[in-house]
Amino acid sequence: MLEQITSRQNETVKIHAKLLQSAARRREAGQFLCEGARLCRDAAESGIVIDTFYATASAYEKYGAYCQKIASVAKRSYQISDHVAPLLSDTKHPQGVFCVCRLPAQAHSLETLEKDKSYLALEQMQDPSNFGTVLRTAEALGIKGVFLCGPCCDPFGPKALRGSMGAVFRLPLFFCQDGPSAAKQLGEKGFATFASVVDSSAQPVTSADFSGPSVLFIGNEGNGLTENCVTSCDHRITIPMLGRAESLNASAATSILLWEMMRDKGAM
Amino acid sequence: MLEQITSRQNETVKIHAKLLQSAARRREAGQFLCEGARLCRDAAESGIVIDTFYATASAYEKYGAYCQKIASVAKRSYQISDHVAPLLSDTKHPQGVFCVCRLPAQAHSLETLEKDKSYLALEQMQDPSNFGTVLRTAEALGIKGVFLCGPCCDPFGPKALRGSMGAVFRLPLFFCQDGPSAAKQLGEKGFATFASVVDSSAQPVTSADFSGPSVLFIGNEGNGLTENCVTSCDHRITIPMLGRAESLNASAATSILLWEMMRDKGAM
Repeated sequence: MLEQITSRQNETVKIHAKLLQSAARRREAGQFLCEGARLCRDAAESGIVIDTFYATASAYEKYGAYCQKIASVAKRSYQISDHVAPLLSDTKHPQGVFCVCRLPAQAHSLETLEKDKSYLALEQMQDPSNFGTVLRTAEALGIKGVFLCGPCCDPFGPKALRGSMGAVFRLPLFFCQDGPSAAKQLGEKGFATFASVVDSSAQPVTSADFSGPSVLFIGNEGNGLTENCVTSCDHRITIPMLGRAESLNASAATSILLWEMMRDKGAM
Repeated sequence: MLEQITSRQNETVKIHAKLLQSAARRREAGQFLCEGARLCRDAAESGIVIDTFYATASAYEKYGAYCQKIASVAKRSYQISDHVAPLLSDTKHPQGVFCVCRLPAQAHSLETLEKDKSYLALEQMQDPSNFGTVLRTAEALGIKGVFLCGPCCDPFGPKALRGSMGAVFRLPLFFCQDGPSAAKQLGEKGFATFASVVDSSAQPVTSADFSGPSVLFIGNEGNGLTENCVTSCDHRITIPMLGRAESLNASAATSILLWEMMRDKGAM
């Protein structure tokens, strides 16, 4: 029989709900809050440490297999009343499944990079939904890790987690001071660095050579890469357009650029 | 001096606000409601008939050039008070610029199709934001028109309009009874029809020949194309994956497929 929480005044729930508020709060606690049966199951299967698992009675019933998997690795599990669930939720219609997870150690060293693989670097990417989708696409296409350069949105915020569909648990993330220094370090390690720009005079991505160890740099949604980052990369590449170039949104452009990079790996 | 509307009880505003509610309401009125300075300006520049233009005093000041363009073609223009704007808005923080537009005539005949161009067909696409993004990407990549097959979301709903960034005003839209009959008709007109599926046994999109007149069929976000539609197309194509195939979301997959189709046109 699971311990039950029926009060919206429960102190543990109130403290955990605050993890939704800010990256600073999450860093301070060393934890993040994950919502949804599939995402929580993905966290459990990816080796993320789950401190606390919360689910409503109806969620236990509806998502039985997911909940069993999560409960089997969680340190504590609670059944919460339906009126408690919205406190922990970032969505309008919560499924009623939540995990409080330990932030993973961010100690991926550049020494772990695989020379025959491709990587993605994001500079100052701010929109969490967009960020999540980019991680999801990167994982789907076989990218082996993502560099977060300068002030990016927090990968463990609720919108980024949801948008990533769990990719954030599986893709190695490298946190870097800024874009230019990341480009220089990666260059020194033998990676070709590609700056993506919206500029018809840049090299068309279709003629870029991604066959060696490569890192694709993508900038902020509104402003693109910083000039300093562009000049720190080996190549400037762009998507050639038949239609209205200014119309391609950031995540569609990233999908196409990542695809072109992986297409060149010959395995497609 | 513009006529001013200061009351939230204004009958005209109340009637126009209802255009946000449903596609049925929009069809009945023969109108749709468009929000935001840039989107309204795009409507004005694309030859959409603007019956009524509303803007707050601060929006007139902030988006002067946009508002002048819109007012120059609108049949009636009003200045509305700040507290009236939220009635007409679908967003949390309205810019304060709105147009009531005439639904464009939907009489694009298949006879107008250009044989040397590429087209997109969407079957039962339901998510309006996704739908809007797909239209935007299609326009950016040079697609010449979009077939909406079966029950798709309304292109003139607030989320689809916003996601499309105005592409909905510029791309010819063809409304079709269902996917299979559209595929058959297009086949008879000499177009090669390509059904996109998630199936590693299908032809990789990288080896598909889009050099002739081509139409790419994309299905519903959750379920893909109907089986009947797939069998009505000439080819079954798929995105070959290095990573986690199930992780690619609908709009990323569509971006990549459209890109591959246009890439083959040789102009990239």
